[in-house]
Amino acid sequence: MAGEQGQKDRIPQVAVRRLPVYLRTLSQVRDQGIEIVSSADLALLTGFSSEQIRKDFAYFGAFGTRGRGYNTATLVNRLRTILGLDQELKAALVGAGHLGTALARYSLSRQRDVPIVSIFDNDPERIGRAIGPITVESVDRLEETVREQGIRLAILAVPAGAAQGVASRLSAAGIEAILNFSPTKLDLPPDVYVQQIDLGLELQSMAYFAAQGRRN
Amino acid sequence: MAGEQGQKDRIPQVAVRRLPVYLRTLSQVRDQGIEIVSSADLALLTGFSSEQIRKDFAYFGAFGTRGRGYNTATLVNRLRTILGLDQELKAALVGAGHLGTALARYSLSRQRDVPIVSIFDNDPERIGRAIGPITVESVDRLEETVREQGIRLAILAVPAGAAQGVASRLSAAGIEAILNFSPTKLDLPPDVYVQQIDLGLELQSMAYFAAQGRRN
Repeated sequence: MAGEQGQKDRIPQVAVRRLPVYLRTLSQVRDQGIEIVSSADLALLTGFSSEQIRKDFAYFGAFGTRGRGYNTATLVNRLRTILGLDQELKAALVGAGHLGTALARYSLSRQRDVPIVSIFDNDPERIGRAIGPITVESVDRLEETVREQGIRLAILAVPAGAAQGVASRLSAAGIEAILNFSPTKLDLPPDVYVQQIDLGLELQSMAYFAAQGRRN
Repeated sequence: MAGEQGQKDRIPQVAVRRLPVYLRTLSQVRDQGIEIVSSADLALLTGFSSEQIRKDFAYFGAFGTRGRGYNTATLVNRLRTILGLDQELKAALVGAGHLGTALARYSLSRQRDVPIVSIFDNDPERIGRAIGPITVESVDRLEETVREQGIRLAILAVPAGAAQGVASRLSAAGIEAILNFSPTKLDLPPDVYVQQIDLGLELQSMAYFAAQGRRN
């Protein structure tokens, strides 16, 4: 019963962001033919503590066998289900400038679990251009394409001033989660999950660690 | 004495990553001429809970006045010192492809606290090209320029296969913190702080939240 409960509860957001790291590591370990892995091994490979790993796995009811560890193939499948990667979630990219192009190329070459299937821009010079196998569409077609293709995720790489308008349209079109590279806090309904990546803030946190190093 | 102790201890890494958000918000509030702000106001503006905010501020010895709140100008200056932004930390960017160009333009237009002062690439077609006021240099000049300019931070936007080699050279040249956009776990001495930004992992965490939404 406790396990059932644990599966229904949401996993804390900080733990969710560690799950893809576990998945990548466990997939590599499995591909090397290793069937059982201990939390201590995973700690070495991921940099998280073995206590943290055992606690995270327990959130979704994966308990290792004492003295042996976790079955890699089982855990890979479990993590893929938990993360929703068994559902073929499609993503749209809005903004085909330098950042958008870099993100699209990265995704097309390395990220097959959450494929970018459509790319939008409002610049006539970019519309119609190909990025890999995808042709950049006019942002006027955003809602139509999202609905037609059943797209549920979006990546936002537009200038700060355009971000809120595009995000509101994405939300109205049924997008469930947005990865936002624009340096703007988005105001959206609470059922849309927003993950913000802000270079300025990342650089400022780095400054802290460099400054700490120098002071000690 | 407890305050002294608190200042010397390192602030937990998760809290450090919230400090730039507080700084940005408090700077905006201060620029609107608001002298005192409560943790409840800051909670509304940042999305963090007021308990979280009070706890974070207490790490560096900033305690609000009961029933009034925090002095915005004092807290802005305090945060800038804590983050090391009073030290003019310079950054180098390695990799002038689409991602590097996007990062450089963003930094040049919006991020004045941690300026990118040098950009490197190994592609003869990119070397000598200007991105804003900066001319892309050959990566052969990496160590020399880092030392000459007193650069302490680096942003890595090179292909995965090149990341470790460049990171080792940056570390040997004295770089103290690296913001790594390459999808590679870097193996570096423990005194180099590495912040990894991995689009693939971010997309997978987003899939979780979208999948959860659909299940509920």
